[in-house]
Amino acid sequence: MVGLPARGKTYVARKIARYLAWLGHHSRIFNVGNYRRNAVGAVQMHDFFDPTHPENAALRKEVADRALEDMLQWFERAGDSPATGAVMTKDSPITPITPRPRSDSLSLSGVGKAGPGWVALYDATNSTTERRQNIYDKCLERGVQVMFVESVCDREDIIVANIKEVKLSSPDYAGMDADAAVEDFSRRISQYAKYYETLTPTECQGEIPFVKVVNVGDQIIVNKVKGYLQSRIVYFLMNLNITPKSFFFTRHGESMFNVQGKIGGDANLSPQGHTFATKLPELLAANLGPETRLTVWTSTLKRTMQTAAYLAWPQLQWKQLDELDSGFCDQLTYEEIEEKFPADFSERDQDKFNYRYHGGESYRDLVQRLEPVIMELERHHEPNHAILIVGHQAVLRAIYAYFLNYSLEELPYVKIPLHAVVKLTPKAYGCMEERYTVDVPAVDTHRSMPHPALNSRAK
Amino acid sequence: MVGLPARGKTYVARKIARYLAWLGHHSRIFNVGNYRRNAVGAVQMHDFFDPTHPENAALRKEVADRALEDMLQWFERAGDSPATGAVMTKDSPITPITPRPRSDSLSLSGVGKAGPGWVALYDATNSTTERRQNIYDKCLERGVQVMFVESVCDREDIIVANIKEVKLSSPDYAGMDADAAVEDFSRRISQYAKYYETLTPTECQGEIPFVKVVNVGDQIIVNKVKGYLQSRIVYFLMNLNITPKSFFFTRHGESMFNVQGKIGGDANLSPQGHTFATKLPELLAANLGPETRLTVWTSTLKRTMQTAAYLAWPQLQWKQLDELDSGFCDQLTYEEIEEKFPADFSERDQDKFNYRYHGGESYRDLVQRLEPVIMELERHHEPNHAILIVGHQAVLRAIYAYFLNYSLEELPYVKIPLHAVVKLTPKAYGCMEERYTVDVPAVDTHRSMPHPALNSRAK
Repeated sequence: MVGLPARGKTYVARKIARYLAWLGHHSRIFNVGNYRRNAVGAVQMHDFFDPTHPENAALRKEVADRALEDMLQWFERAGDSPATGAVMTKDSPITPITPRPRSDSLSLSGVGKAGPGWVALYDATNSTTERRQNIYDKCLERGVQVMFVESVCDREDIIVANIKEVKLSSPDYAGMDADAAVEDFSRRISQYAKYYETLTPTECQGEIPFVKVVNVGDQIIVNKVKGYLQSRIVYFLMNLNITPKSFFFTRHGESMFNVQGKIGGDANLSPQGHTFATKLPELLAANLGPETRLTVWTSTLKRTMQTAAYLAWPQLQWKQLDELDSGFCDQLTYEEIEEKFPADFSERDQDKFNYRYHGGESYRDLVQRLEPVIMELERHHEPNHAILIVGHQAVLRAIYAYFLNYSLEELPYVKIPLHAVVKLTPKAYGCMEERYTVDVPAVDTHRSMPHPALNSRAK
Repeated sequence: MVGLPARGKTYVARKIARYLAWLGHHSRIFNVGNYRRNAVGAVQMHDFFDPTHPENAALRKEVADRALEDMLQWFERAGDSPATGAVMTKDSPITPITPRPRSDSLSLSGVGKAGPGWVALYDATNSTTERRQNIYDKCLERGVQVMFVESVCDREDIIVANIKEVKLSSPDYAGMDADAAVEDFSRRISQYAKYYETLTPTECQGEIPFVKVVNVGDQIIVNKVKGYLQSRIVYFLMNLNITPKSFFFTRHGESMFNVQGKIGGDANLSPQGHTFATKLPELLAANLGPETRLTVWTSTLKRTMQTAAYLAWPQLQWKQLDELDSGFCDQLTYEEIEEKFPADFSERDQDKFNYRYHGGESYRDLVQRLEPVIMELERHHEPNHAILIVGHQAVLRAIYAYFLNYSLEELPYVKIPLHAVVKLTPKAYGCMEERYTVDVPAVDTHRSMPHPALNSRAK
């Protein structure tokens, strides 16, 4: 990352890291601010950041170098990961089909030298050409490709809003008066601004891949970007925006298959499911908040369209929102699956995220299929215009896990009950969640994780 | 489009139009050069393009205005299209699920005022701020959104190569000596260069969405780009490159289901299919051409992996390459489908592109699913490194139709026989095709279009 303080670097780094982790890439943020706070304590006044003060400058450089070294070592651990016969994703959109043992919960794909498909976000100001050249050289030496992401902002209103929203709650200003903190932070920015050099195509021997985001996406400059991941990240950044927004999600009403315990298929709603559909307009109206418009997305399956039938809002049917395809197990009960395909049944319990139904999909496949949906939710930027997704259990698990930062291991066990509406409101560093229910009973279709130790967050 | 002559504007316009048409958008190019040739004849020496010559300048403006007016009227016809109950795609990635009557073969989605989802490419130099302001105002007046795409190039080698490859075969230089033509064309460029003004964020009242492509993608500047289609086009441009490349495609060898006349499923190869697999390495080796490396993409189905089993090249399995999902008809013969689901069977014959198997996919769904595959083929830019896709009939039809510019109506009838390898080499304005076969018999799985009039190209 490159940019003056309060330009949203950490926000952008976290968004990228989350997006990539959800898509199955090892991703990790190395935040130099955290290293500094560990080294010298949180509260440091602006003059600590004065680049002309030799002692503090040396200290800050030492801290930044430590973070960089940790990052490079993290990549080396990626390179050391034992080969497992999995097809490498490396720099392509192709996901491996062979499940493999996982070393951590956010990172399911990509093994090999220098961690193909592993992405670290080095979150610091990196505000001079010299510093960037140094990072660039060190990374290349260790076989790590570099892309710089600069956030440039000259709109005072955005900067002040960012300081107020994010920086005042930072440990750096714990217990300090708000105005004094803003004042101090503005001076800290000035300290960096004295020597700030924006990215230019000529630095790093003229071979520098970078993307420069100006005024939160008003303009984007892309330089020598190569490869699948770099180009995906740029596309993601192009669609990112900071418009306040909320999304509503609900599963379809209880279906006849839910009642019979069958999975898949294209069944009608049960009488109770139908009652839920009739009550949905009122439930939404009571909880819309500042949203004055709503667009409803359903899947192409009858149960979601029937659930949305009483909503007087524009509706779109989206094939990508169809339920996880259970292949040869479609329209069976779990008991029948266990009986007919006992090996599959237990294999799925071992690794539900990677297990692919024969002739159907895995949760990993589903995440890939839902990527355009996530991109569209991120891109959505009409104020006071909310989107309601009337979806399916597995689909909503995947979407919910993206916004709530669940690991891919937890994802297939997220509880999304029938006859409830979830409202998510993404914030700068997190996501606010509200749940509304209506008193229409429904069966419980949730099957818990077989490993109780991992079950704590899967509510 | 914005740019001096020989900057690849027409190439880029055609690529964008093709990409969007394949995704189901009405798209059409209005090429001012063609209007000029119609108005004043093809052969005009460089001084015709001298902006200081008042008469010629007026004539060229008149021609450009005529093309612009035709374009705006085309958009109005889009707005006049009768509503058909189809869900509008408008500016979102969501495809309509209700098939509707089509007004032309390249354009299957998007109806409503001013043609939501309709995209015209206005292909001219548009080299001054004044001219662009004029276009911008006229479009906005008629309810048409504008995005400018500028191609900037200061690398003499690329420009000269472009003149030689494209311009010398243009009707403008029919019958002229090559050196004289290059000389004349360079002077034509100079005529435009005198008054050329590159795009700036301040023109068009500072509200100008544009993308500027510098030196064939070395740098890309994106300004105020909004909305799904604009952002997709930018992503496509980011991945576009002019590296010479070839792609190889083959269906899996004959499968046991092919022999039994069944569709879908996950069958093994037949003995003949297996023989084809054993002969594939030799067939490829004999026809590789300048390619020294090959990467093999298969689907996740056994018949493609078995077909690739004897190839000593890196292999990746890609879920998106799986065969069209025939839903409840999976593993049936066409005779069984006709007997069990007679209505569906005839509905599919009426509109094969839009027909969705119950619980499965339509060709339209398949095209959406294959979009990342097309993007990856376009992005591929390692010289002498070819990709071989071992795929399925419907999947290869869709990919082939993209490169060979088939309409969506023709797409489901493209002949992709078993036991043959197709090599495609995209060129500036077209695609070279070679087919290699090996003497291993196989069943014919092709079912012809029921409307013979449309059948001429579907070979």
